[in-house]
Amino acid sequence: MNDRDPGCLFCRIVAGEIPSKRVFETESVLAFHDINPQAPVHGLVIPKAHIVSLNDITESNAAVMGDLFLAARRVAAELGVAASGWRAVFNCGRDAQMAVDHLHLHVLGGRPMKWPPG
Amino acid sequence: MNDRDPGCLFCRIVAGEIPSKRVFETESVLAFHDINPQAPVHGLVIPKAHIVSLNDITESNAAVMGDLFLAARRVAAELGVAASGWRAVFNCGRDAQMAVDHLHLHVLGGRPMKWPPG
Repeated sequence: MNDRDPGCLFCRIVAGEIPSKRVFETESVLAFHDINPQAPVHGLVIPKAHIVSLNDITESNAAVMGDLFLAARRVAAELGVAASGWRAVFNCGRDAQMAVDHLHLHVLGGRPMKWPPG
Repeated sequence: MNDRDPGCLFCRIVAGEIPSKRVFETESVLAFHDINPQAPVHGLVIPKAHIVSLNDITESNAAVMGDLFLAARRVAAELGVAASGWRAVFNCGRDAQMAVDHLHLHVLGGRPMKWPPG
């Protein structure tokens, strides 16, 4: 779980080489604020290990998904949107507008979210 | 993992009491087509166990998140959007427009998805 891509923006944020506004970190994940927020609350939760996208989730690394959502729930709670509601979004690939090739979970809340989700 | 709420729409779909257009099922999850699709591909992946929302994910049941995303990846592959891209969305609570109180993962693809995600 310590694989790292030295050219990856999010790996560099994990390493502290690029600053981020952190919410918290655990042994396996990092939570920080999106630099381009789309809602009053917009956190990102990422695995510290370099996993590119949802298309790379296999039986051998699937446990990290539980870690990501335990952290997402904590983000929602700490940022005050657990009760009012929040949306959790992963983008995978071109049609989804995935912007950084390191798995990242968007946690959005603090306003009514529309449907469809983009 | 076999907890069931007899009044829950999705528990009734799992039980076969209400029809659905299934994609596949595994021991722990069911994948089917959303009845109100928001994209050319719009699948839902749900745990067979009755878990209400992301706010109910704890260390004791977090492993199901891995199962859901292994299934979501399979949905994306079987419905032909793994390479073109897909978005994975959970709604939790009022502000996110959560419509059924049984955890469900939306898998959307087959068109360019916009940003923000709702």
